[in-house]
Amino acid sequence: MSDSSEIERDTDELVSRSQRAALRLANADDVTRNDALRSIAGALRDRETAILEANERDVEEAEAMLERGEYSRALVDRLKLDAAKLDDIAEMVESVAEQEDPLGRTLAARELDEGLDLFRVSVPIGVVATVFESRPDALVQIAALALKSGNAVILKGGSEASESNRALYDVIRDATADLPDGWAGLVEAHEEVDRLLELDDQVDLVMPRGSSEFVSYIQDATQIPVLGHTEGICHVYVDEAADLEMAADVAFDAKVQYPAVCNAVETLLVNESVAPDLLPDLVERYEDASVELRGDAATREIVDVGAATEDDWDTEYGDLELSIALVDDVYEAVEHVNAHGSKHTESIVTEDHAAAEAFMTGIDAASVFHNASTRFADGYRYGLGAEVGISTGKVHARGPVGLEGLTTYKYYLEGDGHLVASYSGEDALPFTHRELDDEWTVGGR
Amino acid sequence: MSDSSEIERDTDELVSRSQRAALRLANADDVTRNDALRSIAGALRDRETAILEANERDVEEAEAMLERGEYSRALVDRLKLDAAKLDDIAEMVESVAEQEDPLGRTLAARELDEGLDLFRVSVPIGVVATVFESRPDALVQIAALALKSGNAVILKGGSEASESNRALYDVIRDATADLPDGWAGLVEAHEEVDRLLELDDQVDLVMPRGSSEFVSYIQDATQIPVLGHTEGICHVYVDEAADLEMAADVAFDAKVQYPAVCNAVETLLVNESVAPDLLPDLVERYEDASVELRGDAATREIVDVGAATEDDWDTEYGDLELSIALVDDVYEAVEHVNAHGSKHTESIVTEDHAAAEAFMTGIDAASVFHNASTRFADGYRYGLGAEVGISTGKVHARGPVGLEGLTTYKYYLEGDGHLVASYSGEDALPFTHRELDDEWTVGGR
Repeated sequence: MSDSSEIERDTDELVSRSQRAALRLANADDVTRNDALRSIAGALRDRETAILEANERDVEEAEAMLERGEYSRALVDRLKLDAAKLDDIAEMVESVAEQEDPLGRTLAARELDEGLDLFRVSVPIGVVATVFESRPDALVQIAALALKSGNAVILKGGSEASESNRALYDVIRDATADLPDGWAGLVEAHEEVDRLLELDDQVDLVMPRGSSEFVSYIQDATQIPVLGHTEGICHVYVDEAADLEMAADVAFDAKVQYPAVCNAVETLLVNESVAPDLLPDLVERYEDASVELRGDAATREIVDVGAATEDDWDTEYGDLELSIALVDDVYEAVEHVNAHGSKHTESIVTEDHAAAEAFMTGIDAASVFHNASTRFADGYRYGLGAEVGISTGKVHARGPVGLEGLTTYKYYLEGDGHLVASYSGEDALPFTHRELDDEWTVGGR
Repeated sequence: MSDSSEIERDTDELVSRSQRAALRLANADDVTRNDALRSIAGALRDRETAILEANERDVEEAEAMLERGEYSRALVDRLKLDAAKLDDIAEMVESVAEQEDPLGRTLAARELDEGLDLFRVSVPIGVVATVFESRPDALVQIAALALKSGNAVILKGGSEASESNRALYDVIRDATADLPDGWAGLVEAHEEVDRLLELDDQVDLVMPRGSSEFVSYIQDATQIPVLGHTEGICHVYVDEAADLEMAADVAFDAKVQYPAVCNAVETLLVNESVAPDLLPDLVERYEDASVELRGDAATREIVDVGAATEDDWDTEYGDLELSIALVDDVYEAVEHVNAHGSKHTESIVTEDHAAAEAFMTGIDAASVFHNASTRFADGYRYGLGAEVGISTGKVHARGPVGLEGLTTYKYYLEGDGHLVASYSGEDALPFTHRELDDEWTVGGR
């Protein structure tokens, strides 16, 4: 048997085991799932030494690669765990246990006819897989979120963190020996991921974590639904009717408060009628904060900044860089955003409600803000609890996604021997279709 | 320029036009969309002669193919329109106009802090494409559902109905000349569909209509999310504690009331302790209704039916055929269903609530019923209004899907110059995260 068919067979077996575990885990109650989460948190603390030793081996290898110029300092830093970071990870797991149970919620209830009641109830999705780059804490976080939401999980980390991932996985598996065998699986070879991504009949959701390029690569490689985000090309538009002091503060916060993240602004759009009043001071403030600026021709007639090219409008800098363009009105702003934005987060600053409405309803993006910084687009700030991810997809889950993104629903129908024949033909009974307030219980209300 | 690159260019242009139209249609209000629907219904009646003439040309061609043995009588019948059918189609369009507006609903509202309010509001998905086999009424139905939900739509029907599809499309386009140009597009060549299915960055959802094989083909050919259903291998399980008269009625209704549809039962599972009491009469009743029966060895010790093979458990007969297997208990029933079912609709007949709960929570299917026929799994019976389709996918929309399945959501944040910097660092303000009852309006509450 060739290596590749052996890997296929092993991966298929792992996925089948996950499927079986998922069916059983779906019925573990909230207490069982929370106890298991607390047991993981405890084990992370108890086995700190072993985890940090494994991590040290990864870091040594990465340092060697850094010396050979094959690796960046930032990557080494992201890889490195210490006692404090590990404690943060354990605390994160405990906080997931504290969250409200996302399962078993009756989302809708409707009487179809007397004694025939339909309930829509939240249930786990099934088998979720995650593929992530470096950062070993991602493994623990996704395992915790999957467990809380009753899903079996398949974990694949970057090869540079393989020792850390293996150690963390062992801790998780040992701490949850009472849960259905195979609820969490670890995959280590690249070929196993390739096989996994082919199993669209068995794996229900993939959550990639990493760079935009990495997420795009996964999206292109599979027909499994992907929950992830690629680019964040976000805009702030300062309208004719803006409070200019507010506008400057929002535009500054959106770029400078944390420029590396996807919800930071990349292009500032300014209504030409207010540009002469807004830009000179704002540009000075940006320059004091070391922001590199590039403007279109109209902008450069007002302030002395570099020239923006067409490419600038489509670039996620992810850094202290910003492009500026002037627009005639809110409609031109909407057009620019729909042409160049990444449907992530967009903000208008204005006191004019009609302009705000034109902007907010005219733009196709997950989040559209009025008089607020784009940086608010985040699961924690939105009050969604533990953040599963930010999705740039338009179906299933959009924008910041909480635990709800790891659930789907199931219809339960409670009858008393009801037959469709009674509702068909000449003497067909009518349906009542009356909304109910009840929760699902076996046997109905 | 080669033909294939010309087709690519044309398809790309059509899809770009759909995208632009989608952005504008998203903001058409309910009155505008409903007026357009009524205008389509009127035009279908006014232009009856032209539509039926076009349809007649398709039917003549199909009859010729039927004579050459290249086509079945059932397909010709499905293709044929007449005045009454056309009136039904117009009525269907009017009924879609009568439905509640699925757009602009505030699905959730939360205060993040004083004066900073987050709203989750339902919006159209964007560009939906449909690919369907024969049945020209599918074209009108999907165009109507897309319009009601503010989506641009791309329509591709079967080549056997090309004249009918073109005539119906012309009527729809002419009747909606006031809507954004390109909101509905028609695609006629197979190569255009191949190209369309590649445009996963621009087309947001595909809805195939046709046989299981056809839907599977589309699913395998694209990375665009697919809303559709493939197989319906549904089961009825008669438990030890069943009311046997009720069980016989449910099992009979689930098979015989309409055997060709996906929610009809294919395998009857019977607890071995009640099989001797249930099966003899039930088998007689099935045989009187011309149902062809196949049983496992244990079944055949009780009743005289054909022998089922392993393949029977995985077969959607879609006809008056049924397989029967005996099981030890509810757990063995759950195991059989999870191994062989298609996650569509499953039913248990029992008076024992513990057995019902084990079955309903243990099975991974879109719909799980207690003491009711599997035939109830249907958007109309569920009270979802116009049925967009039945989904066997697990994310976005599951089971029978109403207009809601053609919507997604958008987050609107209303602030007063709020900055993330105020909520970070040492003097970080806390978030209030208080649920609100308000609907979104520009400028907040």
